[in-house]
Amino acid sequence: MQSILSYATVGENASPEHAEVVPITIFVAVLCLCLVIGHLLEENRWVNESITAIFIGGVTGILILVLRKGKSSHLLRFSEELFFIYLLPPIIFNAGFQVKKKQFFQNFITIMLFGVVGVFISTVIISLGSWWLFPKLGFVGLTPREYLAVGTIFSATDSVCTLQVLQQDETPLLYSIVFGEGVVNDATSVVLFNAIQKMDVSKIDSQTILSVVRSFLYLFSTSTALGIGVGLLTSLVLKTLYFGKHSSIRELAMMVLMAYLSYMLSELLKLSGILTVFFCGIVMSHYSWHNVTESSRITARHVPLQEEHVFAMLSFVAETFIFLYVGMDTFDMEKWRMTKLSFGTSLGIYSTIVFLILIEAHSFPNESFTLYLGTSFVVQTVIWWAGLMRGAVSIALAFKQFTYSGVTLNPINATMITNTIIVVLFTTLVFGFLTKPLVNYLITHGMRNQNNHGAGEGGEQPRSPKDDVVLPLLSFDESASANMQIARDNFSMLMDRPVYTIHHYWRRFDNAYMRPIFGGPRHNPSEC
Amino acid sequence: MQSILSYATVGENASPEHAEVVPITIFVAVLCLCLVIGHLLEENRWVNESITAIFIGGVTGILILVLRKGKSSHLLRFSEELFFIYLLPPIIFNAGFQVKKKQFFQNFITIMLFGVVGVFISTVIISLGSWWLFPKLGFVGLTPREYLAVGTIFSATDSVCTLQVLQQDETPLLYSIVFGEGVVNDATSVVLFNAIQKMDVSKIDSQTILSVVRSFLYLFSTSTALGIGVGLLTSLVLKTLYFGKHSSIRELAMMVLMAYLSYMLSELLKLSGILTVFFCGIVMSHYSWHNVTESSRITARHVPLQEEHVFAMLSFVAETFIFLYVGMDTFDMEKWRMTKLSFGTSLGIYSTIVFLILIEAHSFPNESFTLYLGTSFVVQTVIWWAGLMRGAVSIALAFKQFTYSGVTLNPINATMITNTIIVVLFTTLVFGFLTKPLVNYLITHGMRNQNNHGAGEGGEQPRSPKDDVVLPLLSFDESASANMQIARDNFSMLMDRPVYTIHHYWRRFDNAYMRPIFGGPRHNPSEC
Repeated sequence: MQSILSYATVGENASPEHAEVVPITIFVAVLCLCLVIGHLLEENRWVNESITAIFIGGVTGILILVLRKGKSSHLLRFSEELFFIYLLPPIIFNAGFQVKKKQFFQNFITIMLFGVVGVFISTVIISLGSWWLFPKLGFVGLTPREYLAVGTIFSATDSVCTLQVLQQDETPLLYSIVFGEGVVNDATSVVLFNAIQKMDVSKIDSQTILSVVRSFLYLFSTSTALGIGVGLLTSLVLKTLYFGKHSSIRELAMMVLMAYLSYMLSELLKLSGILTVFFCGIVMSHYSWHNVTESSRITARHVPLQEEHVFAMLSFVAETFIFLYVGMDTFDMEKWRMTKLSFGTSLGIYSTIVFLILIEAHSFPNESFTLYLGTSFVVQTVIWWAGLMRGAVSIALAFKQFTYSGVTLNPINATMITNTIIVVLFTTLVFGFLTKPLVNYLITHGMRNQNNHGAGEGGEQPRSPKDDVVLPLLSFDESASANMQIARDNFSMLMDRPVYTIHHYWRRFDNAYMRPIFGGPRHNPSEC
Repeated sequence: MQSILSYATVGENASPEHAEVVPITIFVAVLCLCLVIGHLLEENRWVNESITAIFIGGVTGILILVLRKGKSSHLLRFSEELFFIYLLPPIIFNAGFQVKKKQFFQNFITIMLFGVVGVFISTVIISLGSWWLFPKLGFVGLTPREYLAVGTIFSATDSVCTLQVLQQDETPLLYSIVFGEGVVNDATSVVLFNAIQKMDVSKIDSQTILSVVRSFLYLFSTSTALGIGVGLLTSLVLKTLYFGKHSSIRELAMMVLMAYLSYMLSELLKLSGILTVFFCGIVMSHYSWHNVTESSRITARHVPLQEEHVFAMLSFVAETFIFLYVGMDTFDMEKWRMTKLSFGTSLGIYSTIVFLILIEAHSFPNESFTLYLGTSFVVQTVIWWAGLMRGAVSIALAFKQFTYSGVTLNPINATMITNTIIVVLFTTLVFGFLTKPLVNYLITHGMRNQNNHGAGEGGEQPRSPKDDVVLPLLSFDESASANMQIARDNFSMLMDRPVYTIHHYWRRFDNAYMRPIFGGPRHNPSEC
């Protein structure tokens, strides 16, 4: 994209530059193809959209390779700028906008532990593992900082695959945990990646680790505060100006631009744009959305499209674009020629990484958390499974670490890039391929179990796995006592009480002070 | 934008490159400001959104100039690629999608004559005029090709200002003519500009002119055909796959991507992307839109946003961006220092161009067309007025002709760039400032006249101007005989009959063959 933007021109008198229009045209055409084929395969048992996009990207890459007689397969040079400035913000904003806020905040502690602590531990395991195993395979030359970077690169999971299979309405608990953990995980990886770039790796002692943790906490809290601040400001502006009176075009533009502004501002202040735009999305959907809704309801004529559809579309296109790109980049021969490693060694490295990822997913805290949650085998397995896949964030971070503007001439760096691409491909294709059947089997199997054995299956699992998956962790809107009973069954009271209390007071505060100022319906018992 | 995209990065360890995030952040922030201020001034008598954006851009330019101590005012280097590849397609697609098709096609001949022939004549007048007058002012050095380019540059009118004042529902005839003429005019200017780039200017005889006309007609018809083709294909795909059954996200993405693809494909084939995407928009709103509508109606929950709102938003942001940029670029000191002309000479050149624009607007065919239409003084005046303003297309063409990637070191070229900017600023600010009061005065004044004098004011104007403005040129959906009577009053039968017949047969054909294949409601009497 970068190279195109630098030289592309549209004009009849500019033949050499005109050629740069070709890549954009091909890319848009292939994107359209992805949409159609992705739709046709929607009912398919195995394939999901990420796999389709990667596959089509791969085929396109081979075609280009053949047409160019083996010279190069990439139309666009991957730039982590393109990814971080243009593709990631809509994806994360949409995530924040669509997340079911009640379930997200009720499971806030769980999600944070999974996301934040999980990444820290996973980074340590993968860094140490690769530091120990890579030289044994004959691959040397990485600096300590690069080993740490590898750790963060492969800690960024990609839960898109699993989320495409799970149905938010059918399994809200599972969906909200996998979803929230995915976003927090990505944000943590990026923040930690940046923190590692700054830290002094010459001596790693408790002091250094403490300073990384401290800078992480600082980044995390300020980024969140900035996102909430921009979201509230936007809500206030939209409500005060009564934008909806005139046009819903301006409101929509305002929301998109302000969200993007929050991301850029955060990056400018060297905070985490991902966290900022995620919380900005949450606040906007909580307040601004209703401002827009109420007003545009009056002027509406017949097509009930929603704001969230627009954001979802932007996010959807960006995601497809990324997977398509990954597929296309796989057949970039330059990088392969540059690695200078034997096939065996390369294979060894890929296996090592995949092995470490499997180890990491089985490690504390992931295991202990699922035990702590007291949830069934089904929930444990799905959460563990969602943590296996690696995606676009890993690739973007790898390009940032190991290339200069998407180009590398160093064999070690080229190896790490191809390494990342292969791991992403492997996890997305192989694990992704199994996701649909596995998740569907687990959920249906759980249901059959219940039907065969009745309710009193055992002391440890009083309700069926399906029930467990379906039930939100806490639901306070029904009669409080009944819910408390269910909650007691599932959680230790220690964790339960404070969450309940905080949520209760927040609801009261929100209704009394926030909503009158920032907009939105005053009382909204079923959903928020 | 170009320079940003080439070097921008988001990361903590990339301080020199990190600085490139600043321009995007400032630009997005200023865009938000434009939205808010534009909204606040909406009720204002004088100011419209273009003026607001230019003004805010100017203020930002001055601030940056002061902060950088007079070094430079531009954040982003203007590139005609950015304009033609990213900003123009959404604006023109939205125009096609929103246009009231019935009125557009009923006035098709009028619009074409105004748009196409008008641009040809205007190019000749401005080229000859500047060729004759510039040397007299002491400004020499333009080649014959450049004089012709100047002619096309200042033939691209900007009707946005006038359209913002006119209400489509109140004055459909006027709106559809001004709107259609604006799009056709822009497309014609760009096609003609490209044709002039190719033509042999060493000898201009009837042969050369004929070949320009022939290549123009070829470009026009093939571009239109491509647009209609892509539009129909999209409709067919959306209808066949029953996309709406699952998600309206995919349909929306599909429509946006396919429209963009049509534009890029057209540019790639060296046709006119503007015309292609315009007709693609018309076909999509005629067929695809209804496919989407019907299906997403079922899954809708509560926010009645519409597809057209999304397209309108994209177009709105692109337009604001352009005007903001023009304002910011005004205070780019480098160009001003480079012109090397005295203040008097510069002023002379600006006045010459504005004078020629005024002449051109008064010339045949504009006058004769309004006479031919037999419409009132009000309609004549408004159409004439809308043809006075120059906008973004002029600037983009000027940058394409006189700079290399937005940079020029030639004093003559720098003069032509500043010249274009000043003319656009002058016409947008001065004429634009007068548009609201003038149009409102004309329409209200026309109404009062009617009330005072009754219906029989004179033989030449049997109905009031207001009536004349309000009435669609032809409306066939009411009883045919009554309409034919009205039509007879307004038009010569010569023009009237074929239009009626074509429209009638088209409706029958559309209902019998097209809609069953491509979608949309079978019979839609009130609107289409």
